[in-house]
Amino acid sequence: MSMPPSVKSEPLPEGTDAVELARALLKIPSVTPDSAEAVDFVAAVLAAAGFRIDRFSSASAGPPIANLYAQIGESGPNLCFAGHVDVVPPGDPALWTHGPFSGACTDGLLFGRGAVDMKGGVAAAIAAALQFWQAGPPARGSISFLVTGDEEGPALDGTVKVVERLKAQGTRIDHCVLGEPTNPGALGDMVKIGRRGSLSGTVTVRGKQGHAAYPELADNPVPRLIRLLNGLIEAPLDHGSDHFPPSNLEIVSVDVGNPVFNVIPAEARAKFNVRFNDRFSLPTMQAEILRRLTAVAAPASFDLAFQPGPSESFVTAPGPFVDLVRGAVETVTGRSPALSTTGGTSDARFIKDLCPVVEFGLVGRTMHGVNEATAVDDLERLTEIYRLILDRYFANPPV
Amino acid sequence: MSMPPSVKSEPLPEGTDAVELARALLKIPSVTPDSAEAVDFVAAVLAAAGFRIDRFSSASAGPPIANLYAQIGESGPNLCFAGHVDVVPPGDPALWTHGPFSGACTDGLLFGRGAVDMKGGVAAAIAAALQFWQAGPPARGSISFLVTGDEEGPALDGTVKVVERLKAQGTRIDHCVLGEPTNPGALGDMVKIGRRGSLSGTVTVRGKQGHAAYPELADNPVPRLIRLLNGLIEAPLDHGSDHFPPSNLEIVSVDVGNPVFNVIPAEARAKFNVRFNDRFSLPTMQAEILRRLTAVAAPASFDLAFQPGPSESFVTAPGPFVDLVRGAVETVTGRSPALSTTGGTSDARFIKDLCPVVEFGLVGRTMHGVNEATAVDDLERLTEIYRLILDRYFANPPV
Repeated sequence: MSMPPSVKSEPLPEGTDAVELARALLKIPSVTPDSAEAVDFVAAVLAAAGFRIDRFSSASAGPPIANLYAQIGESGPNLCFAGHVDVVPPGDPALWTHGPFSGACTDGLLFGRGAVDMKGGVAAAIAAALQFWQAGPPARGSISFLVTGDEEGPALDGTVKVVERLKAQGTRIDHCVLGEPTNPGALGDMVKIGRRGSLSGTVTVRGKQGHAAYPELADNPVPRLIRLLNGLIEAPLDHGSDHFPPSNLEIVSVDVGNPVFNVIPAEARAKFNVRFNDRFSLPTMQAEILRRLTAVAAPASFDLAFQPGPSESFVTAPGPFVDLVRGAVETVTGRSPALSTTGGTSDARFIKDLCPVVEFGLVGRTMHGVNEATAVDDLERLTEIYRLILDRYFANPPV
Repeated sequence: MSMPPSVKSEPLPEGTDAVELARALLKIPSVTPDSAEAVDFVAAVLAAAGFRIDRFSSASAGPPIANLYAQIGESGPNLCFAGHVDVVPPGDPALWTHGPFSGACTDGLLFGRGAVDMKGGVAAAIAAALQFWQAGPPARGSISFLVTGDEEGPALDGTVKVVERLKAQGTRIDHCVLGEPTNPGALGDMVKIGRRGSLSGTVTVRGKQGHAAYPELADNPVPRLIRLLNGLIEAPLDHGSDHFPPSNLEIVSVDVGNPVFNVIPAEARAKFNVRFNDRFSLPTMQAEILRRLTAVAAPASFDLAFQPGPSESFVTAPGPFVDLVRGAVETVTGRSPALSTTGGTSDARFIKDLCPVVEFGLVGRTMHGVNEATAVDDLERLTEIYRLILDRYFANPPV
């Protein structure tokens, strides 16, 4: 008995198979910031499906970065899928079992740099959106995509510029799903609804160089720095808040650079990084650090300098939209995801200025590592989750 | 009227003028360890005056180092003058008003690298000894010189080797005067009768590297190191003893070397140096440091490594010999010198294994600096002091 010819002769509409889309994206070596080809590929797929395309570059801080905003539908509500198609460098390709840009797919795993962070998430969102729209557009509403090539780099010419452009144009987005790999262990572990703020700085103490045998003629800056750092870390910053773990300060370096034992050095420096929750804002966190330091030593006896580019904490408060995303995850995976605000930064910190943003994507375990890979099954179930989010969102918009 | 011809025609016996001797030594660029020519010069002057010469080299730890033991007289007591004729590098000679090896003598000052540390002291001792002996040797007694070319360097092939050699030969020295520049401000300020011990070490803490946003997946070694260092310095080691200032610990470096703010480092290290008095010995000081560290953190959570080459504290207890030296200083300068055990190490730490040793020399203010210089008047008065020590020592030996 032969297979019915229709099964083989009727391919899926272009762009609606997440695995094929992901493989095509993984074969493009879009190591940040050289991601124009990958952004163009996404633009072409969406254009072919009827999306209006705004593909532009920004080069305010370095080489031109490819960015894309694409929308289908005219009216609100507008549900946006956001993501990035630049990837971190693969390191030595010889360490990979399959080439980092081969798109190899074996034993139920799809390998490649960006498989989970986050070409897989972008592919799943495109597939879900195209399947949904091709099944019949909603009476009211739009689907949009915000895709950048500058998330793994300095992030100065990527999503932040798209957000500026959308604000300037008056383009309204009502809700956003960002497909970063949010799950630590298994699909369904975790939905991210915000992030802690991040603030880095340097404490410098100057003294007077001298011989270790004549401390009375010198002024050793090291004990003062040690006492200042002890003051920074000796008490917890807080004990967490409704949606956040406790704020946390890490002293990440202390440096004097004195090669010998018999010389008291002239200067000592330390670097710190704070991840803070919504009990603090940037100004109150800066004030708290200064307060802790001045409780130990006079302000004139040390220098405190904050690094450029700190970020505020933010949270998308639990409510109908968060419940909708969580519910879709539960329906498909059978697991109840934690609502988390942990981890490093993502472009959600920019998107939150436009609309509520929730993050859910693949399993992050292999991200940035050798042999980054996603289970094909995860990719297919993520597509189902996104499809279910679309179904429920437009059936009963949480606006 | 003409000057009596005898005044100009009778020069001082060779080697008995301290200023001429010092100028001759200063013209020899004996930057450590290249001091053979300076040691040979001293040997020649002493040999011409009748001293028995033992001039030998030692090269156990590097290039050959010139050493000299010279003695005149057969019987005891044997009073030894010790010193070194190697000097620290002059730095950029262009910074000097007079060339560092020019032997320039203007406005009552004798300039040159080593003028006070310590070719001036060696010259004064030679002049005093030769004047004394030529005035008529004592009925009983010997004068000796212990001169090395390895004091400013590692000091592994200098005085320590002469001391070993003298012990092996059974040569007895009863008392020693070391002519290091002991006076902080003016001749007569200070006689040194001992030194604190010195011990250096490194504390290393190892953790687990990770992202600053995920501290729960990392183990930051920096806070542990800060607490350990705080434990080392928070309480005084002691409050001094009869002849010593308080023991003192300086943390001279802390190093992590982490260039970025978002990474928790894997390792942190600190260097310390302790100068300790006779309330501690090396073993008890090492035990005290370990005790302070283990009071803060479990022994397995840090590494403590002591540097090679520590030294014990020592003191030449006040008594007839110390009184004799102090009295001579008082008679010539009209000042009552402090009996001190402060400051950096000197070769007295080796000589103390042979006999009681007391240090007195020029004014140290310019030592190791640009335009190192001694007042000619100081050099002449130091020669008087050494001469008076010899007179009184052999008139009434403190043995």
